[in-house]
Amino acid sequence: MSHDCIFCKIIKGEIPCTQVYEDHDSLAFMDIGPVVKGHVLVIPKSHHNPLMDTPPEVLQKLITVVQRIARAQMKGLQADGISVAQANGKAANQVVPHIHFHVIPRFTTDDFHGTWIARKYESPDEMQAFADRIRQALD
Amino acid sequence: MSHDCIFCKIIKGEIPCTQVYEDHDSLAFMDIGPVVKGHVLVIPKSHHNPLMDTPPEVLQKLITVVQRIARAQMKGLQADGISVAQANGKAANQVVPHIHFHVIPRFTTDDFHGTWIARKYESPDEMQAFADRIRQALD
Repeated sequence: MSHDCIFCKIIKGEIPCTQVYEDHDSLAFMDIGPVVKGHVLVIPKSHHNPLMDTPPEVLQKLITVVQRIARAQMKGLQADGISVAQANGKAANQVVPHIHFHVIPRFTTDDFHGTWIARKYESPDEMQAFADRIRQALD
Repeated sequence: MSHDCIFCKIIKGEIPCTQVYEDHDSLAFMDIGPVVKGHVLVIPKSHHNPLMDTPPEVLQKLITVVQRIARAQMKGLQADGISVAQANGKAANQVVPHIHFHVIPRFTTDDFHGTWIARKYESPDEMQAFADRIRQALD
């Protein structure tokens, strides 16, 4: 745990999140500024950063959660594809210094063309509805 | 192996590549159209696609290779950060349908701002020099 890390605060429940998956080691929750609606963040519960300094066994667990979320986005959101992104360092535009994978549902009609533009949900209910569709499609 | 897959042909040696790392299961080589010079592709030797249908144990090996390449890019290229990207489906702009991770060295001065623009090396020698610097920095 890192006391000033926003993701550690989410893990401890000090900051709320809209969760889609949790296990002993990992948490997946909705990005509140989605580049495409349905955008999920996957993080380890232990504080590590960046990818280069993360224990391999933590990474290995994390990538299987990324896979499960991606499958659930395909099925639950009827996505056409999935983009996975993971940034390390300010030069890579990393904002929160706790390793995280972005798992982004893609649609042939979406307007994400690479430039990272955080969109907004119409309402908390809309974000929750996306989360529910993903969660219910988890295998 | 898939007969019409360009990455399977690279694995079989039918198409050349500028390799930076190889083990029993994985291959890492220079992207010939780098978004930033030093851009590496990490692939499994077995043909799988997309991430959602890749055996978890294959993904788990692959992510540890991604980590080793990222470390070597930081050290060997004196990078300021690393971007990892992995695309699934045409909607996500995936071009070669064999799972691959892009491992991209980032510099505070680079001109990659999200839009995927494939650059060119000045010469094959320049690409080889980047590969050598990464390979020599592998731990």
